[in-house]
Amino acid sequence: MTPSLPPSHPFDFDAVDADKLHEECGVFGVVGVSDAANFVALGLHALQHRGQEAGGIVTYAPEHGFSSARKFGYVRDTFTSQSVMETLPGSLGIGHVRYSTSGSKGPTQIRDVQPFFGEFSMGGAAIAHNGNITNAEALRRELIERGSIFQSSSDSECIIHLMARSLQRDIPSRMEDALRRVEGAFSVVAMTRTKLIGVRDPLGVRPLVLGRLGDGWVLSSETCALDIIGAEFVREIEPGEMVVITPDGKIESLRPFRPQRARFCIFEHVYFSRPDSIIGGRSVYETRRQIGVELAREAPVEADLVCPVPDSGTPAAIGFSQESGVPYAMGIVRNQYMGRTFIEPTEQIRNMGVRLKLNVNRALIRGKRVILVDDSVVRGTTSRKIKEMILDAGAAEVHFRIASPPTSWPCFYGVDTPQREKLLAATMSEEEMRQHLNVDSLRFISLDGLYRAVGESQGRNSECPQYCDACFSGEYPVEPSDQIEKGFQLKAAE
Amino acid sequence: MTPSLPPSHPFDFDAVDADKLHEECGVFGVVGVSDAANFVALGLHALQHRGQEAGGIVTYAPEHGFSSARKFGYVRDTFTSQSVMETLPGSLGIGHVRYSTSGSKGPTQIRDVQPFFGEFSMGGAAIAHNGNITNAEALRRELIERGSIFQSSSDSECIIHLMARSLQRDIPSRMEDALRRVEGAFSVVAMTRTKLIGVRDPLGVRPLVLGRLGDGWVLSSETCALDIIGAEFVREIEPGEMVVITPDGKIESLRPFRPQRARFCIFEHVYFSRPDSIIGGRSVYETRRQIGVELAREAPVEADLVCPVPDSGTPAAIGFSQESGVPYAMGIVRNQYMGRTFIEPTEQIRNMGVRLKLNVNRALIRGKRVILVDDSVVRGTTSRKIKEMILDAGAAEVHFRIASPPTSWPCFYGVDTPQREKLLAATMSEEEMRQHLNVDSLRFISLDGLYRAVGESQGRNSECPQYCDACFSGEYPVEPSDQIEKGFQLKAAE
Amino acid sequence: MTPSLPPSHPFDFDAVDADKLHEECGVFGVVGVSDAANFVALGLHALQHRGQEAGGIVTYAPEHGFSSARKFGYVRDTFTSQSVMETLPGSLGIGHVRYSTSGSKGPTQIRDVQPFFGEFSMGGAAIAHNGNITNAEALRRELIERGSIFQSSSDSECIIHLMARSLQRDIPSRMEDALRRVEGAFSVVAMTRTKLIGVRDPLGVRPLVLGRLGDGWVLSSETCALDIIGAEFVREIEPGEMVVITPDGKIESLRPFRPQRARFCIFEHVYFSRPDSIIGGRSVYETRRQIGVELAREAPVEADLVCPVPDSGTPAAIGFSQESGVPYAMGIVRNQYMGRTFIEPTEQIRNMGVRLKLNVNRALIRGKRVILVDDSVVRGTTSRKIKEMILDAGAAEVHFRIASPPTSWPCFYGVDTPQREKLLAATMSEEEMRQHLNVDSLRFISLDGLYRAVGESQGRNSECPQYCDACFSGEYPVEPSDQIEKGFQLKAAE
Amino acid sequence: MTPSLPPSHPFDFDAVDADKLHEECGVFGVVGVSDAANFVALGLHALQHRGQEAGGIVTYAPEHGFSSARKFGYVRDTFTSQSVMETLPGSLGIGHVRYSTSGSKGPTQIRDVQPFFGEFSMGGAAIAHNGNITNAEALRRELIERGSIFQSSSDSECIIHLMARSLQRDIPSRMEDALRRVEGAFSVVAMTRTKLIGVRDPLGVRPLVLGRLGDGWVLSSETCALDIIGAEFVREIEPGEMVVITPDGKIESLRPFRPQRARFCIFEHVYFSRPDSIIGGRSVYETRRQIGVELAREAPVEADLVCPVPDSGTPAAIGFSQESGVPYAMGIVRNQYMGRTFIEPTEQIRNMGVRLKLNVNRALIRGKRVILVDDSVVRGTTSRKIKEMILDAGAAEVHFRIASPPTSWPCFYGVDTPQREKLLAATMSEEEMRQHLNVDSLRFISLDGLYRAVGESQGRNSECPQYCDACFSGEYPVEPSDQIEKGFQLKAAE
Repeated sequence: MTPSLPPSHPFDFDAVDADKLHEECGVFGVVGVSDAANFVALGLHALQHRGQEAGGIVTYAPEHGFSSARKFGYVRDTFTSQSVMETLPGSLGIGHVRYSTSGSKGPTQIRDVQPFFGEFSMGGAAIAHNGNITNAEALRRELIERGSIFQSSSDSECIIHLMARSLQRDIPSRMEDALRRVEGAFSVVAMTRTKLIGVRDPLGVRPLVLGRLGDGWVLSSETCALDIIGAEFVREIEPGEMVVITPDGKIESLRPFRPQRARFCIFEHVYFSRPDSIIGGRSVYETRRQIGVELAREAPVEADLVCPVPDSGTPAAIGFSQESGVPYAMGIVRNQYMGRTFIEPTEQIRNMGVRLKLNVNRALIRGKRVILVDDSVVRGTTSRKIKEMILDAGAAEVHFRIASPPTSWPCFYGVDTPQREKLLAATMSEEEMRQHLNVDSLRFISLDGLYRAVGESQGRNSECPQYCDACFSGEYPVEPSDQIEKGFQLKAAE
Repeated sequence: MTPSLPPSHPFDFDAVDADKLHEECGVFGVVGVSDAANFVALGLHALQHRGQEAGGIVTYAPEHGFSSARKFGYVRDTFTSQSVMETLPGSLGIGHVRYSTSGSKGPTQIRDVQPFFGEFSMGGAAIAHNGNITNAEALRRELIERGSIFQSSSDSECIIHLMARSLQRDIPSRMEDALRRVEGAFSVVAMTRTKLIGVRDPLGVRPLVLGRLGDGWVLSSETCALDIIGAEFVREIEPGEMVVITPDGKIESLRPFRPQRARFCIFEHVYFSRPDSIIGGRSVYETRRQIGVELAREAPVEADLVCPVPDSGTPAAIGFSQESGVPYAMGIVRNQYMGRTFIEPTEQIRNMGVRLKLNVNRALIRGKRVILVDDSVVRGTTSRKIKEMILDAGAAEVHFRIASPPTSWPCFYGVDTPQREKLLAATMSEEEMRQHLNVDSLRFISLDGLYRAVGESQGRNSECPQYCDACFSGEYPVEPSDQIEKGFQLKAAE
Repeated sequence: MTPSLPPSHPFDFDAVDADKLHEECGVFGVVGVSDAANFVALGLHALQHRGQEAGGIVTYAPEHGFSSARKFGYVRDTFTSQSVMETLPGSLGIGHVRYSTSGSKGPTQIRDVQPFFGEFSMGGAAIAHNGNITNAEALRRELIERGSIFQSSSDSECIIHLMARSLQRDIPSRMEDALRRVEGAFSVVAMTRTKLIGVRDPLGVRPLVLGRLGDGWVLSSETCALDIIGAEFVREIEPGEMVVITPDGKIESLRPFRPQRARFCIFEHVYFSRPDSIIGGRSVYETRRQIGVELAREAPVEADLVCPVPDSGTPAAIGFSQESGVPYAMGIVRNQYMGRTFIEPTEQIRNMGVRLKLNVNRALIRGKRVILVDDSVVRGTTSRKIKEMILDAGAAEVHFRIASPPTSWPCFYGVDTPQREKLLAATMSEEEMRQHLNVDSLRFISLDGLYRAVGESQGRNSECPQYCDACFSGEYPVEPSDQIEKGFQLKAAE
Repeated sequence: MTPSLPPSHPFDFDAVDADKLHEECGVFGVVGVSDAANFVALGLHALQHRGQEAGGIVTYAPEHGFSSARKFGYVRDTFTSQSVMETLPGSLGIGHVRYSTSGSKGPTQIRDVQPFFGEFSMGGAAIAHNGNITNAEALRRELIERGSIFQSSSDSECIIHLMARSLQRDIPSRMEDALRRVEGAFSVVAMTRTKLIGVRDPLGVRPLVLGRLGDGWVLSSETCALDIIGAEFVREIEPGEMVVITPDGKIESLRPFRPQRARFCIFEHVYFSRPDSIIGGRSVYETRRQIGVELAREAPVEADLVCPVPDSGTPAAIGFSQESGVPYAMGIVRNQYMGRTFIEPTEQIRNMGVRLKLNVNRALIRGKRVILVDDSVVRGTTSRKIKEMILDAGAAEVHFRIASPPTSWPCFYGVDTPQREKLLAATMSEEEMRQHLNVDSLRFISLDGLYRAVGESQGRNSECPQYCDACFSGEYPVEPSDQIEKGFQLKAAE
């Protein structure tokens, strides 16, 4: 593996300023194409929004064995050069992009970057995991007790050690063994010397889709990564399904888990997935626009302009404008040259915060009543700063409309969320938040409104919710056992 | 000066794919603040769209003399770290961002990166220049003949040599002497040990604004760079004006040139300037939206969706939708992690071209009649690729609407344009372009329509045009004498 | 761990040109000093001759846990900066420098760089190993079969996995368990959260010494690394001994292995160790000078000058001159700015070979009968080139005198040797070698002469040799079982 | 030009510790070979001892014009890779290595790295200069007054500006004009588009030799750089001679200066030149050995061992041993992995000083009377530390023998010397120095002894010295006018 330098003493602009939840990973795999690594790199580039800190690619070629490279930084900077890509030969490959998890001690190390690799007596296997294993700490303790040596601090490494200890004779069966022991959310793309494997946990919390590229096959977190390489979208991997694909193009579909009712993550629709991806047969962009429409119906307000907080609020703002008739305008402009981190910036630059990234279109805003549409409010820190910028520019009124319900519970299924007490909505009512942000009005879409926007015309089925919405509802479909052991308090039964 | 590495063998994504003209420079200066370099860096970051290849900063502190750093790459990567910024002490500083000019032989060298510095017998001066000197080659020959040694291939270096040879006793007077010898377009920000100086050429082709920051003063290409540092916009430097600002806050306004009627670059409104800047008292965003409105009036078409080619077509698309009533939609999504260059990418990645940057929202486009709004057509290469992506996604019809008139003449005033024969509009009529692009319709805004959108309700005054529109009209307000010497054919008198 | 970049496509100057065997590793550890990492770095710098490719340091501080960094390149470049060293806090630390082994597939990866670390249920441990485990492949197969996941291609990683699977309750006992399973040569420096541990295999093939530094203790491959930090040499760790040192300065000496007669590597005296180190109570420099004396007695020749092949032939050349009376002279001068590798050099530079490093003192050599003293002949490639350079310079006669017996067998105990058929002495007699090198005479010291020079006045005890001299004699004190399994033919019994 | 990064905040090991004078430059040029840059790089590598901080190469090829690269660091690291060298095409090239001059303000900038280049009306020229111009400051003031813009702080840049202002019609004549205006020491290698030019100042203070390589010609500071590329030594360029070499192999020899008696730098024999170079028909090594012989005659002492201070004291120590009969031994061992600078080392490492580089062979020294032979004493700081190391190791007596007379005057002809008051010999007598160093004896070779060793059997001609020995005698053959203007006191006439 060709390691690369982590940024030294970085100033994480997003962590300080952006008021967002962050997907922790994207996965991608391809089999049956020449120079698979190029396709994996392009796929990961299209999935970069799911993880910006680091990425890795593993390939296999009979004459070279397994090859691998893991790098800090954007795929476009790390996995495009001829000199790196020629170290990754073969027609079978998988890749992973990752965001750093808030819970880890200290900065991410290159050893934490996936795919993880293990050599078994019947050959090697590499795995890339999107999601989070909720019983990882207990599993790790048990494995160490028995003599396994962990190399990373990642929960995902458990899977490879469980596979190593399985008594099964082939790698797919070992993976079944291993995944039956893990709890939580997982969309896994894995490979052996000859097979590409995709698995989704029984609830199907994280996405995973299957595509066709000539005679080859592709697995990807989202469809936008099929588009970039010109692959055709075939279908989603189903919750609880495991597909095993051979180089000659055969696909075997297995069901290793006890069947459960699916609970896809509703926040993928709200924010995580790219607007040009298709989830559950629906355009993500169109769903978001529809959230704006619902929001305009639920929480109308008289105003002169509807402005998105760029870029994630844009589709909902378009919908809000179309439903309400209030003109849509780019009241806030994003600096397109803004990167994610700085290396040891000066104090003055560090203090600039959101102004490095966003600027108000002053000539447009002055004297106007402005509706600002954002996708979510997490800590509320960015919302406050944006409101101040808008008022400084002379807006007459500021109305916030939020395209998701109040985020009041942390996610334990592969999303980087602050501790519960840092979530604004965990400690304040909507009116308290309005006062805290000091805006003329603040409204979130209702949970039912959100369900309607994703196509559930009857809204949420509270007996048996159609999605995982734990971050809004506090109802966790899989018990977060490691967290409970560390003292996390579940929502009291009502 | 702390030099930095130029990208080795870069693959210039924009040069290959993007069908745009490019502003070549942005300039910024500040006096009377502590740690001036921080402000200059932030200003340059806000002006990054005017030049992405390299940047430079010069400062002066009595105890350290002149300090300077020039770097390849984005300001956010090169001029934010404590270790670089502490090498640039002082309360007076200027900076420059540059785009590489197509005409230069080979790649830009660090010695070509401004500000340029000269030591004179009465002290040193640094200058940063936005624009282009149209008689630079003749001046250079003359200066070399007399014993000047040029260090760069830049036209701007002439200014500093002309200053060195002036018989005036102070630097501002030497600058007046020098600038009276140069022809073409120039907005210059300069500094001595004690003074910040700003000059605009008599036609005022390139912008330059004055701002106030506490007790200090700021000069900047655009107002968006005042916003980022919290400076107040005071006024534009007038065409033909030279301002000399002392650290104690006094401003002297001089008129070194023979008065002429101003001819501001109209393309700054169309594309170069940032939408959140204010030019001539008008929001650039609002002007672009108005271009869309005019375009919808001039060239309506029945359709299901209006989609911008992101990001530059967005304001005009909004205006087009608002005027026409055809719904606005994000039919094309831009990958926000796309950088400008790759280092020696693989052949496969090089061939991806525009697909690395843009993806079609397939679920939205399928079966729809789509109006695509773009800001301009230069070579037409990107337009073709976008049209193919849209048709591949199943659009029923594709109609291009262009927010500027046909670009049929090169710019010689500081904009990177291809040779005339590479400009699609130089060799084809509108209908030939439509056939070439193979779209259902193609319409450009008229020159009069553009003038109306920038506020000239009577349209263009053809006797005495209010703007420089040479790229559309072929009418050059300053004779491009170096080019003519090299064989460039002016438009035949009608 | 802070990873670093391996050199991309390096041209290994030594591998191509130098006719030497290479020690594969140096180890160092310290306990009971503040900022242990600084001492480890200095120690490794002094041991750099034992491994130039990469180095690693692990430290432990109660408040930070284990910290580690592994880097490609020289210690002086990688482990001196404040920014790296401050990531390695604590008063207890170990380190390792490594040379790449010829047998490994492909280039060294950062994951192959020691110390290796393992987390056990009773806490973590790090180990650094000098030597080679001769049954590593069999052990690795067995461990993988049982579910261990190997991260590196290093034989040394077996030790940490054996420790992980031991049923002992404390780490030193687990290490005893593990080392009883491994065969071959090993000098190990290890650490837990509180203890520094040193072990030498029962034959004591590789060196390991104990030093005292104030109230702290030091373990090092050689005494020269005690000198650099001002530590006092206490004694050698004995063959088969394990010392466990606590931070309060207590040393426990254990004997985990079945006692055997020691067989220290005689080549450490000839070439590997630094001339300023002390081995077995003898100055290495003085031993080498004495080899020259013996050589002058065994193989005198009439000549004008005795010249060393720099730098390793120098002490023996001094001894040869002193014994023979032929004047000593620097007939070959070494370029002190020569590094070990180039990154993708041009063809012309690649072809320069030894001339990049050595130059003949032409004015001195012309017309002279020259005795060249070198430490060994491995492939003979460099010897040929040097002879040609000397003749080109006009020498009248060239006589080679070699300070070791013919190297005709590979080493399997931690030295990088070519395959047997590449060793000149494995396929040619002394006279055939002389003809091959085309010199006037060629003589190697006898094995008995070498033993006399190291202080064995009776020469080699052929029944029970006092040293490991397998590279000369083919008599391997530990059976190289992995090699035999792969087809290596032991010397036929006589 | 491809710029490179200067070391940031380097800790200059030599400047702090080493008690040496440093040559400031080496120059090299070649014409009439394919891929000239490769030869220049190899030549500069062989001349690296004359300047380690930075290097530059300029080449010319008709189809590419002039190409150039300037880099910080060793030639072997900066000018060997294919990717750099292919940017330097052509069959004509020159190069330069430089050491930083103590007098400059702040660290060297890449713009200070030679060769310097100037474009004149009749074409371009590049020059590389070894030496120092003693009236550079006056010339610079005059040139700036007339409108020249200086880019560097180097005295050598004056030459190119003087050439630019010459009224001559061809470049060699302009160079004659320019060099007639400069005072001081200069060996210059220059090139035009078609010619390679070499010049030595009338006194011939710095060396410059001519070599033949096939049909091509070579100019070099020393003969060792001819050896590395296999060129044949033809002759020295004579003091006051200018050679102009055309690609077809013609050499024109000119005499632009008023004839003077030559005064070659005697310190080139003592220390600057490489021991394998030939100066004035004599092997430098042999001259140094002869200095040791003279020293043994002048200052014998009873002792057990003669040890060189490595590496520069080695030849004289060999001569001392041979003349005195006291055995030669390597009592001090140099760490061959020691580089010249560290980037921001920790305080502990910074404090190690000379121990990072040298170690005493303790087993050899204990109880012995040791003669240490060093080439010179400048500040005396290193000598003190070495003496302490030797005594710590248990030496019975320490006798210093110095292979040059007391250095009591600074050099102004291209050597980096401390200010006069920092020179130990400027303020102390030999006995005071002995007490200061606290050694048993201290003796310098006499000035006459040194002259005898370089072949002047009658010693120094005090009326008309054969060499420049200003650093010993205070008799400056060219008046250091810039220095005198700044207050430097010449030696009072006796």
